[in-house]
Amino acid sequence: MKTFKDLFLHFLQDMYFAEQSILKVLPDLVEAADNGKLKQSLADHIGETKDQIARLEKTFAALGEPAEGVTCEAILGLLQETDDILKETGKPGPLQDAAIIACAQAIEHYEIARFMTLTAWANSTQMGEAAPQLQRALNVERAKNAKLNELAWAEVYENAVMV
Amino acid sequence: MKTFKDLFLHFLQDMYFAEQSILKVLPDLVEAADNGKLKQSLADHIGETKDQIARLEKTFAALGEPAEGVTCEAILGLLQETDDILKETGKPGPLQDAAIIACAQAIEHYEIARFMTLTAWANSTQMGEAAPQLQRALNVERAKNAKLNELAWAEVYENAVMV
Repeated sequence: MKTFKDLFLHFLQDMYFAEQSILKVLPDLVEAADNGKLKQSLADHIGETKDQIARLEKTFAALGEPAEGVTCEAILGLLQETDDILKETGKPGPLQDAAIIACAQAIEHYEIARFMTLTAWANSTQMGEAAPQLQRALNVERAKNAKLNELAWAEVYENAVMV
Repeated sequence: MKTFKDLFLHFLQDMYFAEQSILKVLPDLVEAADNGKLKQSLADHIGETKDQIARLEKTFAALGEPAEGVTCEAILGLLQETDDILKETGKPGPLQDAAIIACAQAIEHYEIARFMTLTAWANSTQMGEAAPQLQRALNVERAKNAKLNELAWAEVYENAVMV
């Protein structure tokens, strides 16, 4: 990795792998969720994640590079942790819903960090043509996180405490 | 894991392991950083991370539980990714500094997500006595992330682009 463009592309590929990994796991989270609004919100994430993948593909195209992923150890760790915690909570209900939201928010925060970096880099470089797609991807992740937070307080936390 | 307290304790233990793992890796990041202000900022993180560990220990004590960690796959993945990327950039300079900041901000975002969840849970439960320490830990991570962001724009991004 010699140039700034190499580093930029590496993180783009990292996110391409990450979004595809998230897409594979989302149906399990939808299935595991008990609260109807949480289930619906996670189901919505499937389409939103496909949109993020399309945005990354447009970004690769804007840079004249093929869309491809590289193994992202961070997302693998985050998804492993999610799987482990769901095995520990064991059954659908308010406790597992609280755990699902916590894990989903950790994943959102990883995406927020990476899209924040990529947007900053695109804005400060000759990769400026990539910036609008990445800024949109960042905004989407922030909105998803805020929605999960709202849903957690309105629907889940109070019931979880009763468990 | 049967009760909300079990889940809360699990995430507290997860963060106790995470902060200790970060503490072990920080000297390598200080060593790898080229820009003097970034090097100083990362060196400051060592003391700040020790303070976070002390806050977690106070939180365990407030709950009458022993301070102990559980393996946190998420932080192991984030630190593995950091190590991999530094091997790829290979040598100190503006490019590696940009990579270090990106990885440090991903780690900060994981901590922000977890402390946000723990603070929310402490505020919505009988674990309210844990809330002030966790809120302080959350504020510290947010401030660290904002400082890294400021430093990135002021010191690193412009030079990295020239590479």
